[in-house]
Formats: sequence, structure tokens, C-alpha cells
Amino acid sequence: MSIITLTTDYGLKDHFVGALKGKLLSEFREATIIDISHNIDAFNVAEAAYIIGAAYSSFPKGTVHLIGVDIELNTENQHIAMQWNDQYFVCADNGILSILIQKIVPQKLVTINIHDRLPNDATDLDVFVKVACHLAKGGLLNVIGKEIKTIKEVTELQAIVQENQIKGYVIYNDHLGNAVTNISKKMFLEMGKARPYEIQFKNKTIKTILPKYSDIGISEKYPLKYYEGEKLAIFNEAGFLEIAIFRSNPETVGSASSLLGLSYRDVITIEFKN
Amino acid sequence: MSIITLTTDYGLKDHFVGALKGKLLSEFREATIIDISHNIDAFNVAEAAYIIGAAYSSFPKGTVHLIGVDIELNTENQHIAMQWNDQYFVCADNGILSILIQKIVPQKLVTINIHDRLPNDATDLDVFVKVACHLAKGGLLNVIGKEIKTIKEVTELQAIVQENQIKGYVIYNDHLGNAVTNISKKMFLEMGKARPYEIQFKNKTIKTILPKYSDIGISEKYPLKYYEGEKLAIFNEAGFLEIAIFRSNPETVGSASSLLGLSYRDVITIEFKN
Amino acid sequence: MSIITLTTDYGLKDHFVGALKGKLLSEFREATIIDISHNIDAFNVAEAAYIIGAAYSSFPKGTVHLIGVDIELNTENQHIAMQWNDQYFVCADNGILSILIQKIVPQKLVTINIHDRLPNDATDLDVFVKVACHLAKGGLLNVIGKEIKTIKEVTELQAIVQENQIKGYVIYNDHLGNAVTNISKKMFLEMGKARPYEIQFKNKTIKTILPKYSDIGISEKYPLKYYEGEKLAIFNEAGFLEIAIFRSNPETVGSASSLLGLSYRDVITIEFKN
Repeated sequence: MSIITLTTDYGLKDHFVGALKGKLLSEFREATIIDISHNIDAFNVAEAAYIIGAAYSSFPKGTVHLIGVDIELNTENQHIAMQWNDQYFVCADNGILSILIQKIVPQKLVTINIHDRLPNDATDLDVFVKVACHLAKGGLLNVIGKEIKTIKEVTELQAIVQENQIKGYVIYNDHLGNAVTNISKKMFLEMGKARPYEIQFKNKTIKTILPKYSDIGISEKYPLKYYEGEKLAIFNEAGFLEIAIFRSNPETVGSASSLLGLSYRDVITIEFKN
Repeated sequence: MSIITLTTDYGLKDHFVGALKGKLLSEFREATIIDISHNIDAFNVAEAAYIIGAAYSSFPKGTVHLIGVDIELNTENQHIAMQWNDQYFVCADNGILSILIQKIVPQKLVTINIHDRLPNDATDLDVFVKVACHLAKGGLLNVIGKEIKTIKEVTELQAIVQENQIKGYVIYNDHLGNAVTNISKKMFLEMGKARPYEIQFKNKTIKTILPKYSDIGISEKYPLKYYEGEKLAIFNEAGFLEIAIFRSNPETVGSASSLLGLSYRDVITIEFKN
Repeated sequence: MSIITLTTDYGLKDHFVGALKGKLLSEFREATIIDISHNIDAFNVAEAAYIIGAAYSSFPKGTVHLIGVDIELNTENQHIAMQWNDQYFVCADNGILSILIQKIVPQKLVTINIHDRLPNDATDLDVFVKVACHLAKGGLLNVIGKEIKTIKEVTELQAIVQENQIKGYVIYNDHLGNAVTNISKKMFLEMGKARPYEIQFKNKTIKTILPKYSDIGISEKYPLKYYEGEKLAIFNEAGFLEIAIFRSNPETVGSASSLLGLSYRDVITIEFKN
């Protein structure tokens, strides 16, 4: 029996998340349900893709990830389910999955076709609940959908890799205000080939990507406290370049968002030197 | 073994919710505990009643709903437990249940009388924990309480149904800023008898209640994006009339609360035409 | 099999908490995972110590408390695990445990030494996950660490007990704005020996510590509503003196924080009279 994770823009004040769990447990009483986040910015598919992308690989094989962002079925927005990296993703075809998989071909991709098997008053979410429980119980994708080959592409804000440069964007500010970009460690290693580099943004530069946060303390003469508030670059656990403030706290020290002015859609460039 | 749900005004910063779950698991190690909301506005029984009312029916029969809002036992505030629609509700007699059940007679209603069977230092919440676990294990209401016939009525802010008009109130702004009223779909269908109608609030009118959000896109000439920010009326999943902004986002597009000025206690009227 | 609780400063917006749970379930599929709080102020070890101290005793014996606050391993910050009051605590040696245990000797204390048994790319959190799951499965502390005798002491902001006075500090404002101090009921009873007393802070005084909130309603002539907004002192469930506003609501009535100006690090004194 597999785990079901939830990523939505429902927030934690209303009844929606509780009701969703009630529906899942009504359909599959033994389900293990884990919240990834319910604080996705409303209708923000880029943010949803980043969050699920950063979390999914921590889960066991076969986990089912239900993504409740912009799910209303309409002519522009089909319901789809995908097997990828041995995990399952259930969501609307609104661009989330194309941002997530980055052109890596899924193991299987279907458009969900069980809508006419459900009661007349079934909601879009009821469809997702049915599919997620089916998959978590070990059911096949073929039973709930029809195989398709393509998903909706999202082209804006993609990182661009050129010979001596990678140009990316801030796609997310985390709860500490750190600016997460869509420049991956993979791109950096493949392109950089161990050449020297410089990270540029907003008229500022950083010359070293740290292995871990506390490596900012290069001199043993000072305690780590001395470095609080300094800017740094690091590849975060999700594998993306992050511009951060050491021990940032948006309410006291400040953050990359407040101190460096880095927010959603801002450009970050890495220049390589020969 | 039944599910136990939690609806409180404890917030998610403090230790209260964690400690409550620790107590429940100490009493009943196999309990399945589901959060409905811990962000009820402090002491707001109307909001608690709306949230639990919107969520409970998604849960299986026999689920126990613990409502931790304004629970201190005192002369004005007895502890009660109720069986209603095949589910259990444990809370204080502070008006929550009368708003919830809307005059529909419960299957059973008791005033909890186990206080003197608990340790001297037992808190009000300990009483609820004991009762909720007893019921979730399949225990009877008779064992933990004495049957009563009436609960505390709350009369303010009730929707009023007249021959050609329903007058209701905004009882809740959800996390997207949508304004939820206490005008139910049931009232509307019984009173309206398919007559034409007009919804009025704050000098504005809406002439159509949409079957679903994306039905706002009446013209196929425009993509749905074109309609972002437009006002609409819909019966929400909980069965109540909601005034919303299409794809609202309080931080960007704006919401019914910010754009239309609709907030708690504001009047909404539906006028029927002959 | 024991419960694992989580107390972190990861917030609920990002993927961190979900990913942590995914790792725990990957390591120990049957784990019962309970959130204490993920809204600890970033890097605030005093707040983390207060929250876990207020929650842990509600859990069954053998529960494992994973504390994810300021956990990066470095020369100043070892990873440790402790058995205390028949429960387990896994965290960094950054002062949290010394504030928590208040000089009461732990049953066992080890410095975690499994780092070189984990994969090269294991993070600090992976270490905690491994240790927490090991303990929750019933494993011994000796297997994952080397016994030590002392932990890092934190001396600032300790309450000072003198013959006729206890001087303490506000260590936390809860979600209702109530000011929690580090003056414990135990100190008060031992020092006060039933003498009259006066609580002093910010040029204000309170002469009675209430047994429970609603005891503010001393006169039966008025309903409890009459007392809303009045200041009071009480020992909270965690056993610490709290200055509160009756039925406070930071958004409407106001709170101890907003009305009395009481916030983190402010001094509170109890003067005893002979």
C-alpha cells in the first residue's frame, strides 16, 4: 500500500484540506496521507512544480502525489496521471508536469477518463481522490486513463544554457526569503567543466558556490555568528542554485528577498571564464 | 475504529495541537487523527460551525469530530456530545452545534458527566480527549453523558426566508477572500421555484449563480484568463452561496473581500421575480 | 513502535516538512509521525526549547522528539541524542536541551557518531532521520552514539530566585499574544511558601494568579463577556507563569503583546511580602 502526498493551494484555514483527507479515507481507510504543502500561491503552477519536484524523491517508490492546484476540468485543462521515476503524479494538465519533468520522458502518461463512471455530483477533486486511491492500492494507470504522448509545455522562465553562460530565473522565495533559481547543479557541472565562474544578479556578484551553509566561516578567527547577514550561493537539497543570506530571518536579520531585492522572475546569470 | 478530527482555534505556532495529539495517542494508540483546521478565529463559534459543517460529511460514518473552540467549562458553557447524521461531535455548548444542525434533530445528545471520574488536575481538553477516544473505540454516548433535549440557540445572523426574498449574511471569508454566506442551496431551490432572481449586496448585483467557476467563460472567443478578476456567485461544495472573484488571489488580483468589500456580517439578498 | 514528533523552523510553505516525512517513512514505513510545530522562529533555540518542553509530557513513554532547529553540524554544534523522563530527544547541541532539562540529569546522553556510516551525500537531517527511526524502532542509544556527560549551557535569560523575589523573562508570545515567562509554578511554590505576592512588569501589577481563565469572573453580577480584554496572570499548562488578556484576540480585542507591550526578553518580577 502506497503513501499519498498532497500539494495544494487550499491554505490551512478553510475546511478544504480536512475534507479532502476525509474523502481519501472514505475511499481507502488505510491510506497514509502526508502533506507536502497547502500554501502554494493560488493558481501558481511554477511554484507547485518546484515544491513537488523538491519533495518527491524523498518518498518511497510507488508513492502517489496528488497536486490540487488549478484542477478545474475544462477544455484547456485535462486531468492527467503520470508514472515517472517510479512514482505517480495526479494533477491537471496545466504545465506543472512539464516544468517538473524537464523533458525527461515519463514511464507512462494517461489522460484520466473515469469521469462518467462517477456520480453526477462528483467534483474535480473527487476524480483525483478516486484515481489517487486506485493507484495507492496498487491499481494500474490503464484502468483509469487512456495513454497519451504529450503534455502541455510551459516555455516562459526556462533557464537558458549557452557556451559561457547560464541564464536562469528566481522561481521561488522560501519561507526564510532565500531566492531559489531554476539553474540546476546538473547544468552547472555539465556547462562549467570546472572553469572559474561568477554569479551575477542585480549589480551584485558572488564568486563561490558553497558546499554547505557554514562553509561561509572561512576564517577560524571568528565565530559563525560573525557571518550572520552575509550573502551566499549554494545548491540546495533540491539541486537548484539558491541565493541566500547566512542565518537569514525575514523578521530580524533580513533575507535575500528583502536585502538583495531578489524575487519571482528576477534574472540570475553565471558567467564562466576560460 | 473511527477517525478523530480536530477543529480548534489553537493556531499552528504553539505546542497545543501537538500536545492534544499526544494526549489522544496516549489514550488510544491506534487513533487516526485528521486536522480540519486549527486557524479558527479565536472564540469564533460561527466560524467553527461553518468549517466543521463544510467538512464533516466528507468523512466516513462514525467519525468523531472534536471541536476545541471556547471549551472552558463554566456555568454558561457545558460540555456536550452529539450523534447526528451518523457522526459524533464533542464540544462545548456555546452555540456551535445549534448553528451546525439548523434545527435538524440529533440522533442523540448528552451532557458529558465524566469530570469527577478524571484526575484532579485534568483539564477541559482532557475531558474531550477521553470522550473522543471512547467514542472512536466504539463506546456509547450513554456511558460518558446524560441525555438532554436542548442545546444553546444562537439567533443572531440567521438567514431569513420570505416570500420573494432571502436575506442572509456573510459568515466567513475563505483563504482566497471569497465571501461565504449562510444562504443555502436548499433555501434557494425551495423558495425560488425556478423563478428569475437577482443577488444584491453593497450596491452591486449578480444575475446568475454559476454551476461551476469556469462557466464564467461564456464566450469561447476569449481564453479563461480573460475573465480573471470578475465577480461571480456560486453554491460552494458546502452548499452555501458564495460571492467570489474568478481566480482570486488576495495578494495579486484581489478578492471578494478586498474588491467588493464583503466581510463578516455583511448582508446579501436574493430577490425573486414573479 | 514509538511515535516520532517533529519540531522545526522549516515553516509550512516549503517542501522541507513533507520531504522530512518522506525520508522518515522511507526508513520506517510504519512510523507514527506527529507535528509539534514547524513555526519556530528561525534559529531560535529558546523558543524551540519552550515548545518541546510544553508538549513532550503529553506523549507516551518512549516517544522520539526530533528537533530540527539550527542543526548544521560544525565545530560549535555537535549532534546529540538524549533519554530524559523516559522520552528521547534528537537535536544539535546548541543549548536547546540545557534550557529544556533545567539541570535535571538525563537518563542517558550521547553524541551521535554514525556520520561515517551514511552515504557521502547524506545531510545533517538524514542523520537525524536515521537516529530517530532507530530509536522509534526500539534501538539503543549506545548503537548510534558515544556517551557524554555535559551539554552546552545557555546562561542568558535564566530566571533568578532570591529570598523575596523571583525575576524572570518573557520567553515566548503565543499565537494569541499571551506572554509566557520562564517563572515556573515550582519556583513560585517553593519560594513563596504561601506568602502574599505582587507581580510587576512595565509599571503594571497583578495581585492574583488565577487557577483558571474564567475565574476572572469573580462577581456573578456580570456575564464573562464583561471581562473580555482584562489582564490576568495564570500558570499555563506547561507550568509557566503567563500574562494574558482574557479572551484575547490579537486582531480584535488585543493581546498581552499589543496591549501591555510584553514581548521576548522583557522582565517580570514577583515580589513576596512577609
